Amino acid sequence: MNRAMILMLGAAISSAPALAQGGAAAKEDFKPSSLNQPGQQYPQVNSQGYARFRIVAPDAKAVKVSLGLGGRGGTVLTKADDGSWVGTSEGPLDEGFHYYHLTVDGGTFNDPGTLNFYGSTRWESGIEIPARDADFYALKNVPHGHVQQVLFPSPSTGTQRRAFVYTPPGYDQDQGARYPVLYLQHGWGEDETAWSNQGHANLIMDNLIAAGKTRPFIIVMTYGMTNDIRPGSPGGLASFDIRPFQTVLLNELIPYVDGHFRTLADAPHRAMAGLSMGGFETKLIAPKNLDKFSAIGLLSGGTFSMEDVRATPDFRNKVKLVFVSFGSRELDRNRTNLPPGAPPSDPKANAEALKAAGINSVFYVSPDTAHEFLTWRRSLRELAPLLFRD
Amino acid sequence: MNRAMILMLGAAISSAPALAQGGAAAKEDFKPSSLNQPGQQYPQVNSQGYARFRIVAPDAKAVKVSLGLGGRGGTVLTKADDGSWVGTSEGPLDEGFHYYHLTVDGGTFNDPGTLNFYGSTRWESGIEIPARDADFYALKNVPHGHVQQVLFPSPSTGTQRRAFVYTPPGYDQDQGARYPVLYLQHGWGEDETAWSNQGHANLIMDNLIAAGKTRPFIIVMTYGMTNDIRPGSPGGLASFDIRPFQTVLLNELIPYVDGHFRTLADAPHRAMAGLSMGGFETKLIAPKNLDKFSAIGLLSGGTFSMEDVRATPDFRNKVKLVFVSFGSRELDRNRTNLPPGAPPSDPKANAEALKAAGINSVFYVSPDTAHEFLTWRRSLRELAPLLFRD
Repeated sequence: MNRAMILMLGAAISSAPALAQGGAAAKEDFKPSSLNQPGQQYPQVNSQGYARFRIVAPDAKAVKVSLGLGGRGGTVLTKADDGSWVGTSEGPLDEGFHYYHLTVDGGTFNDPGTLNFYGSTRWESGIEIPARDADFYALKNVPHGHVQQVLFPSPSTGTQRRAFVYTPPGYDQDQGARYPVLYLQHGWGEDETAWSNQGHANLIMDNLIAAGKTRPFIIVMTYGMTNDIRPGSPGGLASFDIRPFQTVLLNELIPYVDGHFRTLADAPHRAMAGLSMGGFETKLIAPKNLDKFSAIGLLSGGTFSMEDVRATPDFRNKVKLVFVSFGSRELDRNRTNLPPGAPPSDPKANAEALKAAGINSVFYVSPDTAHEFLTWRRSLRELAPLLFRD
Repeated sequence: MNRAMILMLGAAISSAPALAQGGAAAKEDFKPSSLNQPGQQYPQVNSQGYARFRIVAPDAKAVKVSLGLGGRGGTVLTKADDGSWVGTSEGPLDEGFHYYHLTVDGGTFNDPGTLNFYGSTRWESGIEIPARDADFYALKNVPHGHVQQVLFPSPSTGTQRRAFVYTPPGYDQDQGARYPVLYLQHGWGEDETAWSNQGHANLIMDNLIAAGKTRPFIIVMTYGMTNDIRPGSPGGLASFDIRPFQTVLLNELIPYVDGHFRTLADAPHRAMAGLSMGGFETKLIAPKNLDKFSAIGLLSGGTFSMEDVRATPDFRNKVKLVFVSFGSRELDRNRTNLPPGAPPSDPKANAEALKAAGINSVFYVSPDTAHEFLTWRRSLRELAPLLFRD
């Protein structure tokens, strides 16, 4: 694994939400976060993007929320008269989804008010700061596809492995239709639940399809590691090897999907994309297997240069799309809190060089977001309409 | 809602695992629970069914686990030299799945070591005490069905509602086959995730089908309430009304399922069953809608008497099966910790009266289990082979 990848993975661990002016009083129009557990009033979010937390722990000495300000270690809660601990972020958080957890008297716990999402190799608390463009991933009264949990045999790992498969609206009714497939990978510390739970990939597709903006296709999401990937663990990141996962994907999952779903089972109708570590995996696997994939998407997961093109035999004949995206905060080198995983070479210049060379290269930057899920939701919204345009 | 129902629902809230001899030293062969988060070493379970907990919270004053002994309020942890809190249940817990949570300095949190499951109207920690017969719900190298998340339009509630649909192995390959459907309801405080997550309904079916013990059929699981059901809340249990859910089920979900899945869309091929509150719902809905359902399953959710038979027009012509089950600890009136929801009349005598009257009545008791999920996993194992035998 190269150093850029290690750095990028590191960026995935720490969420670094941006702050507007500190010190300004938050507007008192707080509402429960959309990700709260049923009936729970906290955490709350206001119209400016401030987050307010309330944790009941009357005998605790200290309660802190990991989410808050870059470099300040989060939001420290203070004890109220009723035995609860309350606090508000010092400023607005970036729009979109954030992972977080509590530190209660030195122990790491989740906020009992909100739902959990798998990230950082644990189920973390999640909060949603409504985005200006939240409509594109909202649950709306449109025809909905299904998200299917499948368990597929994996002789290479000696297990039954899990994947989630999005089938678009209409899949069940028109028994004659066949569909292209996007293999879509999560980031480090996440798993096969991320793109549906945090990413709303199914709702993004439902809305795009209802608006006639994309061809309906299948999305397959599976766990992108075959070993224990916690930092410092045996078989962890330091010994990362793409081959075991590549075997699962190419020899086990793809045949299972083509055998159980009505796919168009050829390279022109198969794409691979991934976020962060999933982008690195995509770049390691797809260009070397152009008999299987014809489109490549790297979402905050590296860049594709002319050097990469030249290193890929038959690239011009077989690759129909190279899509590269980042959050704007990952690219702004003037910011002091630039994530350590910022791209080592200029990804925009690389994308333009490919385009100038006649390759279908698309570069997208998500405004005002970092290495977090709103970047990737928007990236999927941009990527989907570009895929499978035969 | 009658008093028996309120009592039964109360029983669903408190898990009351049984204890063998207290005081005996636990065997030191503890292993991580099968429900732990990836890589987590605690909680652990030994071969006798003792549970051991370890929580890191170096500055806490008191840490307690809600799971432990009936009437003693759980397992109190003690602080170890390394800042963690550790403790072992005073005796073996009942085999199977248990919900629990932590009390840390007066606050309610989940155990960061284990996965969460929706119960008691919150996502709770879960632990699995391996059952002697655990093989029937194990993940094995057999063909697996899929569990599909569907979002169906519900005009009556003005929402897009969620259901999970189990389609059996072979469903995708044989595009001509049509299947019967079981509508299977969760208990109070749970939701549509319970039967797959806690119940392993999909694995139970996969294993039964692989062994040739049941006809393959579809299972549909949806949320059985349309209002806020937390005790004391407006629109809560006290004002329980079956009609809104019945409208969702009969007028919205069933047409959606029959329109999107290859079902046998008639009463002989449609059954309804549920656990605890879901059993009460089944009894309220199915006998009054025998144009839609021909089999009825009450799992720790009430009994069916000759009086009920006489109150149901056309019962003998239309009902092909009445299945009633309980955990043995729910029936043993000699036990001092008998749950408050124990059946008001003798369910076994009721079942035998139906049988004597020529009705296909089956009564099942799960050995050594209470009002908990092993009772219901076993009940599904017993129920499935009896369904749709035309």
